[in-house]
Amino acid sequence: MSDAAWIAVDWGTSHLRAWIMGAEGAVLSQHASDDGMGTLTPDGFAPALKRLVGDLDLPVIACGMAGSRQGWAEAPYVAVPCKPPGLDQATRVGKVHILPGMRQDQPPEVMRGEETQIAGFLSRDKDFDGVICLPGTHTKWAHISAGEVVSFRTAMSGELFALLAERSILRHSVEEGWDAASFLHALSETLSRPESLAVGLFGIRAADLLHEVGSGGAFARLSGLLIGAELAAMRPYWLGQQVAVIGADRVARIYEQALAAQGVAVRLHEGDEMTLLGLKAAHRALEGA
Amino acid sequence: MSDAAWIAVDWGTSHLRAWIMGAEGAVLSQHASDDGMGTLTPDGFAPALKRLVGDLDLPVIACGMAGSRQGWAEAPYVAVPCKPPGLDQATRVGKVHILPGMRQDQPPEVMRGEETQIAGFLSRDKDFDGVICLPGTHTKWAHISAGEVVSFRTAMSGELFALLAERSILRHSVEEGWDAASFLHALSETLSRPESLAVGLFGIRAADLLHEVGSGGAFARLSGLLIGAELAAMRPYWLGQQVAVIGADRVARIYEQALAAQGVAVRLHEGDEMTLLGLKAAHRALEGA
Repeated sequence: MSDAAWIAVDWGTSHLRAWIMGAEGAVLSQHASDDGMGTLTPDGFAPALKRLVGDLDLPVIACGMAGSRQGWAEAPYVAVPCKPPGLDQATRVGKVHILPGMRQDQPPEVMRGEETQIAGFLSRDKDFDGVICLPGTHTKWAHISAGEVVSFRTAMSGELFALLAERSILRHSVEEGWDAASFLHALSETLSRPESLAVGLFGIRAADLLHEVGSGGAFARLSGLLIGAELAAMRPYWLGQQVAVIGADRVARIYEQALAAQGVAVRLHEGDEMTLLGLKAAHRALEGA
Repeated sequence: MSDAAWIAVDWGTSHLRAWIMGAEGAVLSQHASDDGMGTLTPDGFAPALKRLVGDLDLPVIACGMAGSRQGWAEAPYVAVPCKPPGLDQATRVGKVHILPGMRQDQPPEVMRGEETQIAGFLSRDKDFDGVICLPGTHTKWAHISAGEVVSFRTAMSGELFALLAERSILRHSVEEGWDAASFLHALSETLSRPESLAVGLFGIRAADLLHEVGSGGAFARLSGLLIGAELAAMRPYWLGQQVAVIGADRVARIYEQALAAQGVAVRLHEGDEMTLLGLKAAHRALEGA
């Protein structure tokens, strides 16, 4: 590992990922563990990183939950509107630089980790003016203009889907599967009448008991009801906008389908790739220093 | 127990309750256990009842999940519009009469147990014309006319509240407590703009991180957001209607507050009392036979 120049780290609530980086931005190796922030106390972060990558005396640039109040060291949120935070706003612990998240005062919003994906995206597409959607457990929608995050909002559709499909009465009716027509039908129901979410959820169970809907249909219908209600709330973020979706393949494609059905053409970008691009962009400031 | 004439049973998913009844409708004793339908196989029901009340050779009238497909013996749903089912529609196993639930084909809906509370309510107020709201894990709204259940709908707000408050990211921000102003404010937000539920949920977490909202305020706000979205969906069930709320004290009072804020005067009725009235009404047919 003689060429190793620095370590890029993405520290989530449930996962830790690290890339050993060469001097020219090449990835020498990548590593992952389950030592997410949720399992660690503040003095557990340094040992967890050492367990993952070994005892390397290199600069570290980290984003995500490592900077939360219960993380390695707090990196206080920067307030929008502003550019995604860079190295000069990072909290430093020895050779470790922890990038801050972003906050919005009204309506209250926070993000940690997505700002680095946005920074990565903007490092490649500097003149982007439009909206970035980052689907996940907590999906973020960010309005970007002149290189700044102007405003953003969060929908918990991913977490709601998991809770409903795995822990509610609907778990008896929803099994992994996909039916595009059921998805699009449900999507349009809650997008046009968001109040129908409240009755649509139990309706999935009742339809299964009475009419024995295929479980893939129920899975897609639950997803469609939740994402339709999300799109109704996020209308100012996608209507007439240029939208880039950054996320893991499967969930990103579901959002692409949902937006395409509204006539919104979407560009997809892989989440990990954007994270690494964002960490590299921060690292360039370190080299310049 | 020489005066005992019959046994009234309310068999829920997680609870079993029984009342030993005298000849004149007097309750001689009441009993409860955790032998809900969810913990039993079909051949476990008779022993569970015997464990609870002893080996009594008496007629039994049961409502609730005992009649589900996975219950003691299936009592197929009766389809609305119709009167709440009575003894002539019960499934019989020896001296045990299991009352059926109700179904609605479009939109698909089912209930088991609430129909007996409705029957109890109507046995006392025969000419009621309006809406009965039965708050709970799955809140039912039923339109009643000429002694019949005309239509009904279900909202999972109670189950959603429990999942979000106990198992989602919001569990860090929501602790038991109550703040009426937060409740009413949130209620009016989602009632007037139901799409705002999708962003309002994570907003509770963000507001707590940024502004340190008191947890009782967050608890009431979560309740208000969910019930406001429910009222938006159920508008045809309460707007300009006479509404009776049947439920356990605390949750029934929350619905009363929510409806009062819309100018709807509500009458409250205790859930267990209505269940027992409904089982007694069914029993009168047994005496008449």
